[in-house]
Amino acid sequence: MRNVTSDTITEAFLKTFGSETNPRLAFIMERFAHHLHAFARETNLTHEEWMRGIQFLEATGAISDDKRHEFVLLSDIFGLSALVDMLHSPEDGTSSSVLGPFHQENAPPLAVGGDLKKDNPGDVVLVEGIVKSVDGTPLGGAKIDIWQTATNGLYAAQDEAMAPFEFHATMVTGEDGRYAFTTVRPAPYTVPTDGPVGELLEATGRHPWRPSHLHFIVAANGHRRLVTEVFPRDDAYLDEDAVFGVRDDLIMEYVPQPPGTFPAGLELSGKVDGPWWKVSFDLVLCALKTAAPEKTLENCNAD
Amino acid sequence: MRNVTSDTITEAFLKTFGSETNPRLAFIMERFAHHLHAFARETNLTHEEWMRGIQFLEATGAISDDKRHEFVLLSDIFGLSALVDMLHSPEDGTSSSVLGPFHQENAPPLAVGGDLKKDNPGDVVLVEGIVKSVDGTPLGGAKIDIWQTATNGLYAAQDEAMAPFEFHATMVTGEDGRYAFTTVRPAPYTVPTDGPVGELLEATGRHPWRPSHLHFIVAANGHRRLVTEVFPRDDAYLDEDAVFGVRDDLIMEYVPQPPGTFPAGLELSGKVDGPWWKVSFDLVLCALKTAAPEKTLENCNAD
Repeated sequence: MRNVTSDTITEAFLKTFGSETNPRLAFIMERFAHHLHAFARETNLTHEEWMRGIQFLEATGAISDDKRHEFVLLSDIFGLSALVDMLHSPEDGTSSSVLGPFHQENAPPLAVGGDLKKDNPGDVVLVEGIVKSVDGTPLGGAKIDIWQTATNGLYAAQDEAMAPFEFHATMVTGEDGRYAFTTVRPAPYTVPTDGPVGELLEATGRHPWRPSHLHFIVAANGHRRLVTEVFPRDDAYLDEDAVFGVRDDLIMEYVPQPPGTFPAGLELSGKVDGPWWKVSFDLVLCALKTAAPEKTLENCNAD
Repeated sequence: MRNVTSDTITEAFLKTFGSETNPRLAFIMERFAHHLHAFARETNLTHEEWMRGIQFLEATGAISDDKRHEFVLLSDIFGLSALVDMLHSPEDGTSSSVLGPFHQENAPPLAVGGDLKKDNPGDVVLVEGIVKSVDGTPLGGAKIDIWQTATNGLYAAQDEAMAPFEFHATMVTGEDGRYAFTTVRPAPYTVPTDGPVGELLEATGRHPWRPSHLHFIVAANGHRRLVTEVFPRDDAYLDEDAVFGVRDDLIMEYVPQPPGTFPAGLELSGKVDGPWWKVSFDLVLCALKTAAPEKTLENCNAD
């Protein structure tokens, strides 16, 4: 190895692996080293540029903690998160989209028809739809994680004025597969720009805006888990999402509704006098090829 | 961009750049995204593997601080640091090699012939040579940064029992270009294995050993700055350095010397009775094409 050259270093790297190495890990490392080395050769990367990269990674690590996931953000703005989604998105059913860094585990339960708006400012929006299988069968007992920003563009974790789980909930569909909740229309917002990723966006002349969106994770027995988000058709950033999350089939509409028409059977029924808005969006899951528990990572028509 | 696919995301990424972006930065980002996306596609990277990668980067950031540079180590064990060295190593003169994470700025000055061993355990070694230009001209007034481990394989920054700059010094050559110092023979050592990089080495069946070595940075007016390290010919790890730093021309020898032969004119002269060891190694710098101060990044025969 003392005669390694810039042309042979990838091969030298591979020769260091032990014979017992997990084949999938070895393959991932091999492809990563191949592309990392090719990147350095093709750019003729200098020591100064290498050091700038190391400093960038150290700064990205330094700003990260349990609530701030700057490496996820870095992956997001490079389109890597969206690419991983697309590689494993089912051909049928609702497209998946980026999870983002603000999902919280163990959000409190909310009954179908419950309210997330509470006393927060903003117009009342009713979001509803059916969780169903690709063949149209409604999926009762499906669990939906719901999260979004307030009208100020901030998630609960970003805004000390909000309760920890404000605009976060989990809902279980009834036999009809229906979900429904009232909330506010979240604003477009910028990804966090006060860290190294923000500096990188600035240096490459990129804006940090995402179109307004509602996040969902949907899980139902015998079906592939769906991580997705939906976007309003009239959003100014629909074609320039900083994290590449928008898909054609994830576009919905806030449809204005006249005063006095708010429906019965919801937590806010009888309390909404003025105009309100309605979003209808069905969440369509693909069935697993086998529903056996040990095969839950198997997809219906994507690998 | 709402119709971006796994095949078009690299192009979509590039379209986000502002027109004022520094062309070199844009080129580096373009090549990085190209290879990052190709890596994800070729491995069909899963969400779980992506998340494992994010967790790895977060753990690498969490263990890093002013003294612990785990991202440098990561670059080292992937061969990226060595590759950057090789891309910019001069065709003539002493090869460059990995800086490593343990260089300290502002090490105390040591006169030519001075001693680094002090009261530390180990045999006395005299390291000496000439700093010269490729054409053979001795380079007086050259500044040499010298650093190494103690015989326990630890640098001062890793061992609280050592003074902060133990085995670190800076030396300026006289008119004859000569440098000389006494020290101990450092042991082979393992790179730090108590962090994420150590886990990665373990998972891929790689050992963490480096051959014993002495580090130098050499700077002389009108010449290209040299960052390098030298390795003993009889070291067991010469052909399997965990960070790919060994080059043929960086191999030297510890030559045993009989008792009573220690030379005059050194700080330890008259104090060494038993056997001692001698290392002779000339450090050969290439001249810059122009010595103008604003061109100091220009190399003599490499770009």
